[in-house]
Amino acid sequence: MKAVELSAKWDPKPNFKLGSKDIDGKLTYLGSQVWRDPKVRIVDKEKPKIQSNEVLIKVKRCGICGSDVHMNQTYDDGYIYYPGLTAFPVTLGHEFAGEIAEVGAYAINKRTGKRYEIGEPVTVEEMVWCGECKPCCDGYPNHCERLQEIGFSIDGAFAEYIAVPSRLCWSLKKLQDRYDDIYKIGSLIEPTSVAYNAVIERGGGIRPGENVIILGAGPIGLAATKILKTAGAAVCIVSEPEEYRAKLAQKMGADYVINPVKEDFVDKVKEYTDSEGAALYLEATGLPQVVTPNIQNTIWECKAVNSTVVIVARAEQNMPVCGEYFQVRRARIVGAQGHSGHGTFPNVISSMAAGMDMTPLITKEISLERVPEYLNILQKDKENCKISVKF
Amino acid sequence: MKAVELSAKWDPKPNFKLGSKDIDGKLTYLGSQVWRDPKVRIVDKEKPKIQSNEVLIKVKRCGICGSDVHMNQTYDDGYIYYPGLTAFPVTLGHEFAGEIAEVGAYAINKRTGKRYEIGEPVTVEEMVWCGECKPCCDGYPNHCERLQEIGFSIDGAFAEYIAVPSRLCWSLKKLQDRYDDIYKIGSLIEPTSVAYNAVIERGGGIRPGENVIILGAGPIGLAATKILKTAGAAVCIVSEPEEYRAKLAQKMGADYVINPVKEDFVDKVKEYTDSEGAALYLEATGLPQVVTPNIQNTIWECKAVNSTVVIVARAEQNMPVCGEYFQVRRARIVGAQGHSGHGTFPNVISSMAAGMDMTPLITKEISLERVPEYLNILQKDKENCKISVKF
Amino acid sequence: MKAVELSAKWDPKPNFKLGSKDIDGKLTYLGSQVWRDPKVRIVDKEKPKIQSNEVLIKVKRCGICGSDVHMNQTYDDGYIYYPGLTAFPVTLGHEFAGEIAEVGAYAINKRTGKRYEIGEPVTVEEMVWCGECKPCCDGYPNHCERLQEIGFSIDGAFAEYIAVPSRLCWSLKKLQDRYDDIYKIGSLIEPTSVAYNAVIERGGGIRPGENVIILGAGPIGLAATKILKTAGAAVCIVSEPEEYRAKLAQKMGADYVINPVKEDFVDKVKEYTDSEGAALYLEATGLPQVVTPNIQNTIWECKAVNSTVVIVARAEQNMPVCGEYFQVRRARIVGAQGHSGHGTFPNVISSMAAGMDMTPLITKEISLERVPEYLNILQKDKENCKISVKF
Amino acid sequence: MKAVELSAKWDPKPNFKLGSKDIDGKLTYLGSQVWRDPKVRIVDKEKPKIQSNEVLIKVKRCGICGSDVHMNQTYDDGYIYYPGLTAFPVTLGHEFAGEIAEVGAYAINKRTGKRYEIGEPVTVEEMVWCGECKPCCDGYPNHCERLQEIGFSIDGAFAEYIAVPSRLCWSLKKLQDRYDDIYKIGSLIEPTSVAYNAVIERGGGIRPGENVIILGAGPIGLAATKILKTAGAAVCIVSEPEEYRAKLAQKMGADYVINPVKEDFVDKVKEYTDSEGAALYLEATGLPQVVTPNIQNTIWECKAVNSTVVIVARAEQNMPVCGEYFQVRRARIVGAQGHSGHGTFPNVISSMAAGMDMTPLITKEISLERVPEYLNILQKDKENCKISVKF
Repeated sequence: MKAVELSAKWDPKPNFKLGSKDIDGKLTYLGSQVWRDPKVRIVDKEKPKIQSNEVLIKVKRCGICGSDVHMNQTYDDGYIYYPGLTAFPVTLGHEFAGEIAEVGAYAINKRTGKRYEIGEPVTVEEMVWCGECKPCCDGYPNHCERLQEIGFSIDGAFAEYIAVPSRLCWSLKKLQDRYDDIYKIGSLIEPTSVAYNAVIERGGGIRPGENVIILGAGPIGLAATKILKTAGAAVCIVSEPEEYRAKLAQKMGADYVINPVKEDFVDKVKEYTDSEGAALYLEATGLPQVVTPNIQNTIWECKAVNSTVVIVARAEQNMPVCGEYFQVRRARIVGAQGHSGHGTFPNVISSMAAGMDMTPLITKEISLERVPEYLNILQKDKENCKISVKF
Repeated sequence: MKAVELSAKWDPKPNFKLGSKDIDGKLTYLGSQVWRDPKVRIVDKEKPKIQSNEVLIKVKRCGICGSDVHMNQTYDDGYIYYPGLTAFPVTLGHEFAGEIAEVGAYAINKRTGKRYEIGEPVTVEEMVWCGECKPCCDGYPNHCERLQEIGFSIDGAFAEYIAVPSRLCWSLKKLQDRYDDIYKIGSLIEPTSVAYNAVIERGGGIRPGENVIILGAGPIGLAATKILKTAGAAVCIVSEPEEYRAKLAQKMGADYVINPVKEDFVDKVKEYTDSEGAALYLEATGLPQVVTPNIQNTIWECKAVNSTVVIVARAEQNMPVCGEYFQVRRARIVGAQGHSGHGTFPNVISSMAAGMDMTPLITKEISLERVPEYLNILQKDKENCKISVKF
Repeated sequence: MKAVELSAKWDPKPNFKLGSKDIDGKLTYLGSQVWRDPKVRIVDKEKPKIQSNEVLIKVKRCGICGSDVHMNQTYDDGYIYYPGLTAFPVTLGHEFAGEIAEVGAYAINKRTGKRYEIGEPVTVEEMVWCGECKPCCDGYPNHCERLQEIGFSIDGAFAEYIAVPSRLCWSLKKLQDRYDDIYKIGSLIEPTSVAYNAVIERGGGIRPGENVIILGAGPIGLAATKILKTAGAAVCIVSEPEEYRAKLAQKMGADYVINPVKEDFVDKVKEYTDSEGAALYLEATGLPQVVTPNIQNTIWECKAVNSTVVIVARAEQNMPVCGEYFQVRRARIVGAQGHSGHGTFPNVISSMAAGMDMTPLITKEISLERVPEYLNILQKDKENCKISVKF
Repeated sequence: MKAVELSAKWDPKPNFKLGSKDIDGKLTYLGSQVWRDPKVRIVDKEKPKIQSNEVLIKVKRCGICGSDVHMNQTYDDGYIYYPGLTAFPVTLGHEFAGEIAEVGAYAINKRTGKRYEIGEPVTVEEMVWCGECKPCCDGYPNHCERLQEIGFSIDGAFAEYIAVPSRLCWSLKKLQDRYDDIYKIGSLIEPTSVAYNAVIERGGGIRPGENVIILGAGPIGLAATKILKTAGAAVCIVSEPEEYRAKLAQKMGADYVINPVKEDFVDKVKEYTDSEGAALYLEATGLPQVVTPNIQNTIWECKAVNSTVVIVARAEQNMPVCGEYFQVRRARIVGAQGHSGHGTFPNVISSMAAGMDMTPLITKEISLERVPEYLNILQKDKENCKISVKF
């Protein structure tokens, strides 16, 4: 079968020390410190064989994620952008949906409590949490100590078939009544679940009638916009300098978009909320030194108490946090990562079944063969949000 | 000024003992044990004078509540239906909106943090919580130990003017952009807040994508339907035998209506939810012995864990609760009363400003003079939901 | 190796229908409907072999649980008392501690994140949750849809060795500094975790300075007493008619014990709490029709709002719940079962390491050979709390 | 009557602008920008007269707080240290207990629900929350928009008598059984409530068996130490460089004290907790740039997920927060201020009644006349924790 494979050269930087879970020459938790000269090619691989707790999925759709781009994008010294868990060569692709093609003897469908059926449409968590470490046993699979990641450290879904443990799969049957192409929206469940985990599970959600502010209209910020309007946000403000993204934010339900480069962020929030501010702020830009002052000054100058700031974007910079603002306004900051556990995937699917349509996020559909080309184009393209591969 | 006054005869039943907070001949916490032969008349009263912490409101709208009907409705022995806090004679009316006409020296507008402005449109909490007892100081005004109630134990809003403490008032300014008649929807904020307190504050709300079941399509059940759809309920099922109410439930957002007299409740829920059941059940019928088995069997036979059953309707009957069902399904039961505190009124107003339109609940508009007539008609009428008096 | 085995005759009652997960002649979820003429014997079994994700434990201690007694106790018609999941013949015993004797290739120690070490002292969850069904994946292993139970449906720990999945094991190393016999207290972690899950996880715990009331001084009630005093309960009241148990309750930290047969429950609570009542009530008697009125009347007559009633004891009777009391006092009822997940086992172990000594619950120590004898004695004995088998 | 009065000169710094709630020449929210040349004297004042909702308290004890010292301490330019709400001249003193001497007609005792009794022993919240603004009405009196503060902007308790609204008073009757001098411990309830609000209300408390780390062994850090041990903390670590304070921390229940100047903070925490880390960190030093890296590195290097960092100390410096650490470890930061609402005062009193003895915090007892002298001494003294004035 055809697959999009990324390979790179294991060449650790001088100061790099092999971590306790790293495997020399093969796997590291700090990709950008180790891998250089990435290459992406269409290769021919064998159809995977399944274990007794696994299913084989015939892939129907798979989206391109920013991290796919960053694994293939390099700094001047040739090292890759992507800083996280990686084991190359690997088949890329982790935002996918497909149908069950083969079923292991003990592969359970959570929808029925019984063995999976051939043909069941499913999507899959990208995080292969172990289910045996302490965080997993305590109910926090997003913080698994022995994580593998589909499309990063094990083979992903830019391929005709993929084998995955059945416990990571979620049925798409509910989507059949509303959507013609359940695999198209199905491939958006993974990124939507990252946003849902951030604002609903970690951020604690909102009460209907509360205001929210989303900083950054990338796929996660845009998905969060739609989720929070679905949850009853009264005024939803998105902060985004790119015009194309601003329009997409309005399509996803934003009541107002601020251009933080041209407009005064605090003033605009005060104007749009009658100086009330917001119950929830989502930092989805990755630029904490830029946005933290905006967030904090808004908390300080507006009246709302109990605001929650959710940090979902990764960043190496520190946030300059003024504790007093969080004391006076009874506010808090929470970190968010992952999409697994807590009923997140099934709640996202149910929400979509009830009308939370995320498909406007997909701005282009391509074939598998063009993935290598688009991984390069997307290093600069600002006109696309989510590109989706149709099989 | 004209006012709708209810008077009755203080004639305690033989076994009645004056409670510690009752006032002989004037006020009781157990109305139906004491008052008989109620009479409702249009009377002429003096315009009320305000204290320094009060405002005078020119009433623009006031809805008729079921309890208004029950204060005027009697058993065969002449005693009134309404079992709660009452002090007659009293001007009825507690679901109202109006505009500020006079302002006490220390009457603060929570919207601005400054003294109230003449002409500000407002609605008012019905519960005059004291702010000094332990529950009030701990943040639970719905459980005030020294409660007075507007339109029950102190004069209400079926009158041209009413004087109330400013701390009970909430501005309607936010509603001006969306609604032509802000007083019409403003008069629905009090009952909507009872439903919001039940399902959001006490029930803990839902996560987008979860299912809900509302038992009883009276005003509270119908308001809860709309609130929970606003909060992202995937499947919202209402149980209601009256056809007229069933249609109204669909208008307010119900995805399905079950007629529990003609249909098998558990089977229908399983059909509509793919046997998942619901995250939240609202008991809004007042018939616990009828609906508790339906709720419990659904919890038992469906797959959802963590269901919450909120009891908002008052009833003298016990609920026959099978603890094991709540153990096996990790479920819980909570009691709900009141509408004050917890940001409920302002969140309801913001939700309405953002499009949560409750006005379909109003099925008839009348003048003040016709209130006595309609208090009688409503003892039997099943074709009306909320009747609203327009001044 | 020697083991205490219970066998019985599969003889379903006339109306019994095989459930969807029952296995004819072997396993049922409704033990008392199927099994008759139980026999308990010391047998010789082969030492179990482990799978790659399992460890072999050399058992050092195992307590006798009430359910062990009830599997061996019969009604007049010969059917066993125990109503739950059972597959006979089975080696009994599920409250145990021991040391690691063999380690599967993928058997992870949650303390270290690495493979288990020979000799590590451990205790084990009794519930073999699958980790693959929806409740397990959502973080609720106590509500696993495919549960097996050690000592009920698979072989238990009244044997020299037992093989269990490593994900169920928890290290006892922390207990070494404080306790001479870590296996003695280690065998109490399972029942203590049932109580901890009930009052801390499901009941939400308490704030230091709040009052609690425990109904029933069996092992779960007594463990809850100690846990809640550890959590800062100001006044802890235990209700228990048996004098011997009452004394044990005081040993475990109860400030007062009420004899509900001789004393007026509500009056005594009012006296002991200055009419404040309690934040948390634990129903641990299994007699809901007796204790529900006591609990409810106390909630009603005392001043506390926000009380939580936790139902941990199993019962077939309904609770006659008066919804109005839960409305007026802002109270709630939650069902509790199980001990897995949510960090419960490790928190219980840490608490014990810090001084929460449960060993007074053990009132007798016996050898494995005497288990059959004591399973009979305990059908009537009221002078013992927990009997512990020392290997 | 005698009173300790602080006066100062209103002389705003050049850039100071009068705030919207400031009163020219009298009151400001930014004390250190306005007041210079403070003087503290014993003066003779008239016994205060009470309003109908007030009580007169005969003061029995009043502690000296750090802020009392800072109102009297100046920078080189003569401006006072204390940066907050102040209106001079004012009688100092806000950590006090006394007995009711006179009672207004509507002054309610929250213990009984009735009018206060002469002689009732009480303590008093320092924060005079208005009960009428939005945060107050929503249940957040610590964030009152119209706050006055006893001993800062209105007359305090370094005086024979003080008049206060009854809603701020809490009975000390519960303390009579355990403590000989209920006013001594009673004067510690206010600062203990600040700590309780921080770790229990804002921090969410802990589950028994979890670890905690307190940074800074001032009165708030020490009170938090005792509170968290009372709540079941397994390992409680205090970080404090001053030897005298370190000893006091151990007296209050700390299991370990780290000297962060001499020892490696992260290493020591790993040693004391078997690399588990802590569920709750309390920043009580006011040195965020020093302690934030310690806290964050501990979160990062230890295994615990779900840690909460509570910021209770005021500081002008920013915290350099690394968002990724909070993402990877599922951690959060909350700001804490105040002591009112949420049942905090009554829970602190109940805890003390049950044995949470805070009196070791008091290291010296003096007479009223010596307050001015000790306000100076305490600018440098490191050998005293809490100095208590006995009347």
